[in-house]
Formats: sequence, structure tokens, C-alpha cells
Amino acid sequence: MSSSRLPVCVVGATGLAGQQFLAALADHPTFQVTRLCATERSAGKRYSDAIRDPSGAIKWYASEPLSPELGGLEVESGSSFDPSGLAVVFTAVESDAAREIEPRLARTVPVVSTASAFRYDDDVPIFIPGVNMAHAALIDVQRRRRGWKGFVTPVPNCTTTGLAMSLAPLCATFGVRRVVMTSMQAASGAGRSPGVIGLDIIDNVIPFIAKEEEKVERETQKILGRLAGETIESASFAVSATCTRVSVLEGHTEAVYVSLARVATVEEVKTSFREWGADFLALGLPSAPARLLVVHEDPFRPQPRLDRDAERGMATSIGRVRVDGALENGMKYVLVSHNTKMGAAKGAILIAEYLAKKGYIG
Amino acid sequence: MSSSRLPVCVVGATGLAGQQFLAALADHPTFQVTRLCATERSAGKRYSDAIRDPSGAIKWYASEPLSPELGGLEVESGSSFDPSGLAVVFTAVESDAAREIEPRLARTVPVVSTASAFRYDDDVPIFIPGVNMAHAALIDVQRRRRGWKGFVTPVPNCTTTGLAMSLAPLCATFGVRRVVMTSMQAASGAGRSPGVIGLDIIDNVIPFIAKEEEKVERETQKILGRLAGETIESASFAVSATCTRVSVLEGHTEAVYVSLARVATVEEVKTSFREWGADFLALGLPSAPARLLVVHEDPFRPQPRLDRDAERGMATSIGRVRVDGALENGMKYVLVSHNTKMGAAKGAILIAEYLAKKGYIG
Amino acid sequence: MSSSRLPVCVVGATGLAGQQFLAALADHPTFQVTRLCATERSAGKRYSDAIRDPSGAIKWYASEPLSPELGGLEVESGSSFDPSGLAVVFTAVESDAAREIEPRLARTVPVVSTASAFRYDDDVPIFIPGVNMAHAALIDVQRRRRGWKGFVTPVPNCTTTGLAMSLAPLCATFGVRRVVMTSMQAASGAGRSPGVIGLDIIDNVIPFIAKEEEKVERETQKILGRLAGETIESASFAVSATCTRVSVLEGHTEAVYVSLARVATVEEVKTSFREWGADFLALGLPSAPARLLVVHEDPFRPQPRLDRDAERGMATSIGRVRVDGALENGMKYVLVSHNTKMGAAKGAILIAEYLAKKGYIG
Amino acid sequence: MSSSRLPVCVVGATGLAGQQFLAALADHPTFQVTRLCATERSAGKRYSDAIRDPSGAIKWYASEPLSPELGGLEVESGSSFDPSGLAVVFTAVESDAAREIEPRLARTVPVVSTASAFRYDDDVPIFIPGVNMAHAALIDVQRRRRGWKGFVTPVPNCTTTGLAMSLAPLCATFGVRRVVMTSMQAASGAGRSPGVIGLDIIDNVIPFIAKEEEKVERETQKILGRLAGETIESASFAVSATCTRVSVLEGHTEAVYVSLARVATVEEVKTSFREWGADFLALGLPSAPARLLVVHEDPFRPQPRLDRDAERGMATSIGRVRVDGALENGMKYVLVSHNTKMGAAKGAILIAEYLAKKGYIG
Repeated sequence: MSSSRLPVCVVGATGLAGQQFLAALADHPTFQVTRLCATERSAGKRYSDAIRDPSGAIKWYASEPLSPELGGLEVESGSSFDPSGLAVVFTAVESDAAREIEPRLARTVPVVSTASAFRYDDDVPIFIPGVNMAHAALIDVQRRRRGWKGFVTPVPNCTTTGLAMSLAPLCATFGVRRVVMTSMQAASGAGRSPGVIGLDIIDNVIPFIAKEEEKVERETQKILGRLAGETIESASFAVSATCTRVSVLEGHTEAVYVSLARVATVEEVKTSFREWGADFLALGLPSAPARLLVVHEDPFRPQPRLDRDAERGMATSIGRVRVDGALENGMKYVLVSHNTKMGAAKGAILIAEYLAKKGYIG
Repeated sequence: MSSSRLPVCVVGATGLAGQQFLAALADHPTFQVTRLCATERSAGKRYSDAIRDPSGAIKWYASEPLSPELGGLEVESGSSFDPSGLAVVFTAVESDAAREIEPRLARTVPVVSTASAFRYDDDVPIFIPGVNMAHAALIDVQRRRRGWKGFVTPVPNCTTTGLAMSLAPLCATFGVRRVVMTSMQAASGAGRSPGVIGLDIIDNVIPFIAKEEEKVERETQKILGRLAGETIESASFAVSATCTRVSVLEGHTEAVYVSLARVATVEEVKTSFREWGADFLALGLPSAPARLLVVHEDPFRPQPRLDRDAERGMATSIGRVRVDGALENGMKYVLVSHNTKMGAAKGAILIAEYLAKKGYIG
Repeated sequence: MSSSRLPVCVVGATGLAGQQFLAALADHPTFQVTRLCATERSAGKRYSDAIRDPSGAIKWYASEPLSPELGGLEVESGSSFDPSGLAVVFTAVESDAAREIEPRLARTVPVVSTASAFRYDDDVPIFIPGVNMAHAALIDVQRRRRGWKGFVTPVPNCTTTGLAMSLAPLCATFGVRRVVMTSMQAASGAGRSPGVIGLDIIDNVIPFIAKEEEKVERETQKILGRLAGETIESASFAVSATCTRVSVLEGHTEAVYVSLARVATVEEVKTSFREWGADFLALGLPSAPARLLVVHEDPFRPQPRLDRDAERGMATSIGRVRVDGALENGMKYVLVSHNTKMGAAKGAILIAEYLAKKGYIG
Repeated sequence: MSSSRLPVCVVGATGLAGQQFLAALADHPTFQVTRLCATERSAGKRYSDAIRDPSGAIKWYASEPLSPELGGLEVESGSSFDPSGLAVVFTAVESDAAREIEPRLARTVPVVSTASAFRYDDDVPIFIPGVNMAHAALIDVQRRRRGWKGFVTPVPNCTTTGLAMSLAPLCATFGVRRVVMTSMQAASGAGRSPGVIGLDIIDNVIPFIAKEEEKVERETQKILGRLAGETIESASFAVSATCTRVSVLEGHTEAVYVSLARVATVEEVKTSFREWGADFLALGLPSAPARLLVVHEDPFRPQPRLDRDAERGMATSIGRVRVDGALENGMKYVLVSHNTKMGAAKGAILIAEYLAKKGYIG
């Protein structure tokens, strides 16, 4: 059976995002993890040893247990890694490392990345499933310009994902003029080494996450922009974000305020959410949810603990849709999006499934 | 010594806000708590017995210990209470109870209230220290119209307090057109019976607090409005709020976005915050802070755990002042305000100190 | 299909334990919830309305969603309820209410209860699955003495469950002389109304839970006692407990110290845990786990967040088995047990499955 | 004024324990911090820059703000540091670093250390204020044997402190035979780099802290041992500990079970706690509390959030004193001790004050 699956590698496999890739790929019908990379320090170790901390604790953060097969794989060094023979490489490394590693890999194979290194390049699309698949045409541009056999397609920052997913139907149906967003982000968004320490987050809110707001503002505009020739014309609406960290394990909560281009009722807005994504969902990709957006009527929802796992972490849950009195044609709502599932590894895998379906991978 | 202090009563003394009144009045130079009221159920008990739960635990939530004098006072029933001889009554009861009790008391004595019952009446000012003391002229209108010897002056909802304190200098210096605000509120804002239960708030955010957003929007406009003859003309700018609850004990955090009436620099905005309140502070009232607004340059501040107790809980801490790209002449910032100190009991006491200084009390 | 299932009722259906019963019985192969009881206040309402709080929030605490069928059932009043035609009644009410309701029901039908009211009666067994099924013989004694067609069998306090499950193999294999146990209990153990409030448990440990230690000590001795004629002779070993509450949602953690009757090695103790319960598990009851006790070698396990759901909440996870130097033949370990699953509703359901298999129910 | 204070240095000044030293010494009447050491990486930086993390956040964890004087001191490298001219050096470094640095410093000056490196050496006393000051005679032995002008005196592990403080009066008054202790330790005990991460401790208990139990068992026996000639004869009673980590910021909670050498009543035990330490307290040292042990009657106390700051963090609070039924002459109780105050920096400073009074320092 497994011989028919496409061989893939996870680079940055020991980090939190890397672990989420392994958890999500454990029983994947299309992809099979055959190789793992991490830093020099982990190279040569069995994976389950590479994730021990100095006291001997296994630091595995996915809710699914680590499979013995993956735990037994030998970790290779990301810096000297030869990707030949792989169908796709998933990277989950810091931006600086990505800037070095990803172009080298992309010469040979497709790279689907959670890093920000190439997100803002003209010939690089930032994919969110069901939102901007038309941007896939940029992949050919990228290959031609850079002379690569593979390519790099990053997913966005995890805080962008829920926001852009909710804005997509509003852009398509009503037009969007301005967006104000305050996030209350989960601790897992900061990774595990060191991540957010208990002393900082218990009984507290951290009002700042370095570089996060700039990413959210810029990525949202690019993702919701229009492919124009060989580049993407960013959406013209302004986005203003305040990104904070709260005492939550998983699931980013965002309070969103939107100025629409035309008058709309709360009911019309909810309908646009509910109907979004039919074409993408019709593809029947293995990791796709049944609904991209879940709309709640109970004003106490969505809550990160109750709603982060909606559709196995692949749906954005939206509630409290109501008129906003401060903005022109204002509408406001609260959303919850799973930052380490749709917002990171599982979202990247779903993109790879799409690209495989469309012939870019495999 | 104590004979020279003004005798006061706390109504609703067993609740969380009532306890904050007792803690704040324990060594007060001007006011002395001589009587306590609560519901029928507590009447006749010693105060320290009235706050026990069924298992025998003393449910006292102020950080200062309960003084033996106050613990030994006998609790009276709020419904049959005769306020004769008191200089002022502080009420900390639910809105429905306030609607019944406060007018009865106000016939005889001044009432400074944390309840919302009368906040929206035409002849009732909602005071925040240093923000709208000019509204005190309404007290005479209220007395005349209602034929009361006393009066009722509520403080605002605890979430309004920090927001309006930060907007006041912006209104005065630049003018304000629109306000968008997302709050991340502490558990103590919900009181103690039952308050927010651990099962709801651990590893979670609650995206809704019933009636809170309406209060914040309406009260902010009234507080920052202009006294016009015998009423207050609400400020004309629109306010849009999303109020959420997070896993924090004390201290509300608010992300604020303001469209100013004219262009301003970040430096000018910070200066307006820093210079605010000089006249009020010059009065030297016992509970007044040295600064009403504290401005932080470190982008990781303010944090509720680190900044709620700034100036003994009587200052609003503001940080992350920066340009907002989504609103016209947009400016955004994060604030932390102590919800049970300046935002409730201690704020009400400071108002009473002001009114005593101006001859309305005592 | 459903016509072949046995009709059952849950009394106290709106509380936290009651909700766990409904969640666990939603797709049960043997039992079907056909009726629901709660207090007078809820009687006549649809179940989903009966669990709303004053602000309109649906207070449903099981991780599984409430099924529409159960949400639509009309709640009946527990005090006037006629159980005729039911195969078994599950009760999840406070002890005082149980003392009144349960004997009335037991005259007609079997009652499996989470309340403590009858736990200490001579003719009442306190069942833990796989631990003391031999005590079932007491049911006949109880029926005869009390002249009931039904009977009452309580499950123990949720903190007793994990302790007694871990002690059972030690008693059987080595003998037990003394037991010292410190618990770190989850907030859900206190229920939802009011339960443990956030203000008490965030950044804190509560060192006392009223009556809990007495229950644990007494119940453990009875459960591990020997059926002697028409009563149970309590086990002769002493038990000393300190029960505390920590900031955890679900899953009780217990640090246990045992003085064995004879020398044993760590390996022998682990083996006794691993091999425990084979006979009971061989019955293949629907809610039974594959293992009653799960033994960990990683010293950082068990943790309540990672291990409470082992075997769908029906296994007790044990780790850190090591020699104790303070007690004679001392052995110590840490366990985690799911307090609202095996420790309450799902444990009671598994008992009912056993009693149905043995002909006491149905 | 400051010229009359004794010049001291803090080694390991950037860590959590080092910060607590700086906070506690900020206005000290006897000692003045004139020099600071940390690792090579921090050397040459101003202290306030040395504690920034990569994102620019100042990582300062004491509740008192960092004084400008200390913030402006230049950090020196601990490995090449010349202590000449200092009255005492306080070290707050890991054990491996201490093993290298402390002997070098002790050749010249007294070293009071929070590290475990030398705790178990025959000629090294482990001091707890008011518990074992008679062990000071070992300092002369140590100097003579090692040929040092200075000496090394470590304080114990922070979990040992509260336990040994509570056992001291029991040993003195009744004799102690066996001790069983389960700790629920605060996140701050793990330091700040990386410390306990939020992902591990939110909604969780960690059942293991590497090496902690061995330290507690061994140190308690040594501290409560008897000086016999040139060494300490460890106390003969057995100690068995289980050390866990809970979601608490500061303050270790411990459930203690003691087998006394003779029968005692609860009242006698409480009296022994209350009367403990009179001689030591009579010295009137600047950092000494008014009471070393605070006894609570309310069964819901002590709680870490409410009681950790008793006597400015320098008292151990004890509650729930009651008979234990499992041990011979058994008595049990719960204590809370401030792990970063009496349990670390402030405890070490109080020891230095004692040694200065007795002529060993200055």
C-alpha cells in the first residue's frame, strides 16, 4: 500500500510546527513521510530521541501520539540535505533558516513552507485553501524566472489564516474597504523553544507579538489580491491589527470589524460565510473540511477551547455577526481558527493535496 | 480621630465590588464605614459570617485583609435601611436592586453607585475622576427635578472607565470621530456569585459579555459629552466595542483604534496622555493617583498582571501608541485599567472625595 | 433499532455529572435515554432550554455535542417522578436530594447513583468496574431487607476511583498495610453551579475540599473490603488523604504512597498493575476499556491533560512507580484518573452494563 | 550613606534567582550591590540590556521594578571575575557553573549560594534562617581544611525550605520518625530560560521535576541533623517526596505527613509551630520576618496566591493541621512557602545578615 504514496520530507521536524506535520501525515492517503530534517544538533539521532529535553522528557505536543515508524526515523541535517526523489518537502523552520534552505531545495522539488521568508516576493503566492487557488498560476512564473524545477509556496502566518478566510466571501460578495482586527492568540503560536513561558502568560495578556501585525496586514492584502499578469495586485483595502497573546493552549480568537463597500444585512453576511468554498470543497481533498466557515448563532460562541477542533481544526468558526456602528457599512464578528492545524501544518498539507490534484506535485 | 470622619454606609457589602469598597475605605482619612447593608439573607449576621460560603470558606477577594472592625459590623437589610445621619452611601448592587433602593436613599443622602440603573437618565452624570467633573452641575438639576435632598451619581461600567480616560485627552486636544475597541476583561469583572467559573475560563476566551458592549458605547459618549443647559449632549463620535473575557484575575486590557478629527503624530498623542488631568490632580484628593494616565514605551507593556496596580490601581496604563492605517487620522494603542479599583469601588470613592471637596457631600 | 434498547432515565440531568451521563449514553448499544429529570425549576422545559443560564448561554460541558434528540426531551420533576417501565435510573444529584429520591425509585427499579447518600449503608455495595464485582451479592441482601423490587448501587467519589483501582492489584498480590495519598483535583469535580470560580483557582491551589478526605478514606476501605455474609468487612489498612484543587479542567492527579504487606520490586508492582482486570475485561462490556490500568515508563507521565482521555477516559494511568523510603515495604507512584468519565457517569454506566449482563438489570 | 554599606556582588544576575537578589538588595540597609556577573554573552552590557530577549522585551520577573542604578551597572563575566574588596558574593547559577566559579571566589571572599554544587560536602552547612544556625561552626572547619579566606554556604533547594522550617519545631519538641511530602510547585521554581512553558503547564500538572525529590530528601536530613565534631550527622528519620509542578506563578504548596516520635495533640503541634524561632527573631535582622511560621485555622488556607507574600515572602504558612491515621503518631498539614523569596534570594540574604552579625562576613 505505502509504496503507492508519494514520498515527502519534513524539514524542521523537531519544532512544534514540524510535529504537527508528522501528526497530520501519520496516516495520510497520498503522502508518506520517508525523511526528516532538523538542525545539525539533532542530525543522526532517532526522531524520538531528538525531541527529548535535557531532563529526558519527550517534548511532543500534538494531541495524536507519535507513531513508532516516525519516532524511529533518523533525523538528517537540513543544511546538507539532498531532496532528490521526494515529491514535496514541507518546511517548518524559522525565517532565516528558510531563506537559506528553501531555494536550495526548490531547485529540485516543490516546497510548501510555513516560514515567512519568501511570502512577500512578487512571484510567490501565499495560499489559503479555498481562498486564492487562482494564484497557482504564479508557480509557473516563479519556476521560469528562477530556473527551478520545483518551487516555494508558503502558507500565511497563522493569524492571517482565519482573518483572510472570513474576509474572502465578504470581498467577493460585498467588497471590503477597511478592516480592523484584534487577535487573542494561543501560546502554541509561539512554538516550543522557548515559546511562551508560564511566568509570562498565567494570569496575563501580552499585548505585543514581534512582527505579527505587519505580517497579518500585508499578507491579508496579498492573499485577497488579484492575479494581474505575472504578479499579484494587493487588495486595496487597509488592514489594521493589534496582536496579543492570551492564556490559551490552541486556537486564535480574533475580533474583526469590516467596512463593506456596500450596505449589507447581518443575514446576507452570514449567508456569504455559509455558502463560501463550494468549488474547493467539491474537489474532495483528503484533508479538506466539510465546511470552510462555520457560523454560530449562540453569542457565546466561538470559544477557542470549544471550537478550535471544528472540522478537525480545518474550519474557521464565526460568531457574533452584527452591525458595527463606527465604520461605514460596518459589520463585526468574532472568529476562532486553529493556529497549528488549518493555520499551519494541516493547512500546508491541504495546499499540497490541491497542488498534487492540479499536477504541480507528484 | 475617627469622630472627625464622615460616616458612610456600603450597600451590597458582601459582593465582590462591596468588598473592594470595604478594603479601600479601611483606613480612609475622610470617610468611615459605620454601617453595612446586604440582602435579607445576610441581615443580622456579623459581616465576616455573612461572606462565608456553605462549606464555611470565607469568600473575601480583596488583596488587603479584612479588618476586624469591619468584619465585626452587623449587616443590615438593604430593603429596609434608614440612611439618616450618613454623609454618603456607596452602593454595589445589581441594577434591578439599585432601581429600587437608590431612589429611596437619595431622598435623604447622596448615593455614589456602581450600578447601571440610573446611568442613562438625563439628569444623572456618570463620573470618571478627572474626566468630566464639569458634569457635577447636573446634580443640582437632579435634586430640583426629583425633590431629593440627596442625589445619585453612578460611576460607569468598569470597561468604560479605561476607554473614556484615554479618549478624554484625545477629544480635548485633537477631536475624535470614530472609536473601535476590543476588550480582554478579567474574571473579577463578573463578580463572585457565581462569577466566571473555572470550567469556562481556563484555556479559553469567552467572546461575549451580556449588555457590556451597549453600556461601553453609550456611556463613553455620555461621559465625553458636553453639559448643555440641564442635560448632557452625548459626544457625536461613534463607538464600536467587542467585549471578551480572558483568563486574568484583575485588570481589563483594551485594544483601541481611534479616528482623530485632525492629523496628529504619535508623539503629540503621547504628550496629550502624559499631560492629562493636571487640574484634577492638583486638588490632592486622598485616593487620587499621581498620574491618571501612564504611558509606556516598551511595546510589551501594558500587561494586566504587571500594570493593573500602577498608582495603586488608580491609573490607566497605555502602551503601543502607533499609527493606525485603516482609519482616517488613525491612531491605535493598548490600555490596562484596574476594573475593581479605579473601575469600581476606588473610583467611586475618589468621586465622593471630589464631591465632598466641592460641598456636595458632608 | 432503538426499540430493542433498554429504556433509562437520568435524574439530575442538568448538572455537570448529568450532562456526562447524556453524552455517554448518546449512542449506547444497550441503553436508551427516554426520560430526564431535574429540579422543579427545570420541569416542563425542553432540556436544551433547561441548561441555559440567565444570560442565555447554553451551559453544556461535555466535549461531545448535545444530540438534538436529547436536547428536545422534556424535563420532568425528580420529586414526583414515576419510574415504572424503566430498566434502570441513573442519578446525578446532591446527597440530600438522593436520600429522598433514590429509595422511592428503588422500590420499583434499579438505581445506579453518583451520590454519596447510601454509600456507607451495610447492605449497599460501592462498585468500581473490575475491582469489587463480587460485592454484587449484597444486592440480593439489600432487596430482601428493604423489600424493594429495585436497588441502589452508588459509584464512589471520583477521587476514590483512581486510588482504589490502583490499590486493588496491590491488595490482591502483595497485601496493603498503609496508604497515604495527596490529590490534585480538577475543577470539574466541583460541578458547574457554582463549581470552582476562576477568581479562586487561577494562579492558585485550594488545599481543602469539604468532606472529600473522609469519603476517600472510608470508601477505599469498603471497596477493597471482603464480603462476609450479609455485609462487607472493610479492609484493615489505614488510608490518609489530603485533597486539593488545582487549575486543571478535567482529570484528577494523585500522589500515592503504599506500605505493602511484603517486600516487592518495582517490576513486580508494575506487572501487577498491567495484568489487573483480565476477567472483567473478558466480559467485553460496551463501555469497558481495553486496559483498566495503563503503566507509564516516562517519568513525566501521567499528566492530566495528556492522559485523562486514555481509553476514552476509562483507564487509570499510573507512572513514576518507585520505592518509597519512608514506609515499610514502601512503594510510591502517581496516577491520573478521569473524574467525570470513569470517576462518575461513564463508570456508573459500565456498572449498569455489568449488572445487566449478570441479570440484575433489564 | 551608601559608603557605609558593605559592597556585594551578584553572580548569575540575569537569571530569575539573580533578579530576585537585585530586587531584594535594592534598598538594603547593610549590603550594597556594586558589581554584577553573568555569562560571557552578557559581559560588557548594561544590566537592563543584558536581560532583553531577542524580540527586545525586558525580561524582569521581580514584582518590584528594576532600579535605574542597578539597571545601569555593567555586567562582568563570571568566569574571569576578581572578587577582591567585596564583603560577600551571592551566587545564583546552575550547579555546573557553581562548581567551577564558587571555589575560585571562596578563596578570597564569603559566598552565599543558591546552587546545589556544594550542598552535600561534609564541611559545608546548608542554612535555613532560624533552623540550623548552630551549623555555622562548620565554616571554620571548611576554611581550615580548604585553606580559603572565604567560604561557601549554600541555601537549600526551594522545596526543602518550607518543609524543613515546618519540621524543625516538630523535631525539637516531639521527635520525628518518618516524613512523606507531596509538593505542588510554582512555575517560577524552574527559572526563566526556558523555565516551564505555557504549553506544558496550562490546564495541567507535571508529575516530575528532575533531581528534585532526591535533593529534598537528602537536604532535609542534613539541615535537621546534628553537628558532631567536624561534620553533620544527618537526621535519622526517612523522608519520601513526590515533587510536581502546577499552574501557579509563585509559592510552593506542600502536603506533609509526619510520624512523630511520641503522641502529640493537634494543639501541641500548632503551639510548637507558633512558638518557633524566638531566639533567631530576637536578633532583629533586617530581612527577618516577625514570625517564621504562620498557623492558619481556616481549612481553606494556606493558598499560594493568598499566602505566599506573608511576612514579605519570609514566613512559611501552615494550615490544616490534623491527625493522620496512617502513620504512627501521625500528624498532617499543608504549607505554603515563597520559593523565590525565603526559598531563594531573600533567604540567602537573611543568612548573610546573620553571618555578618556573627562576624563571618564584613
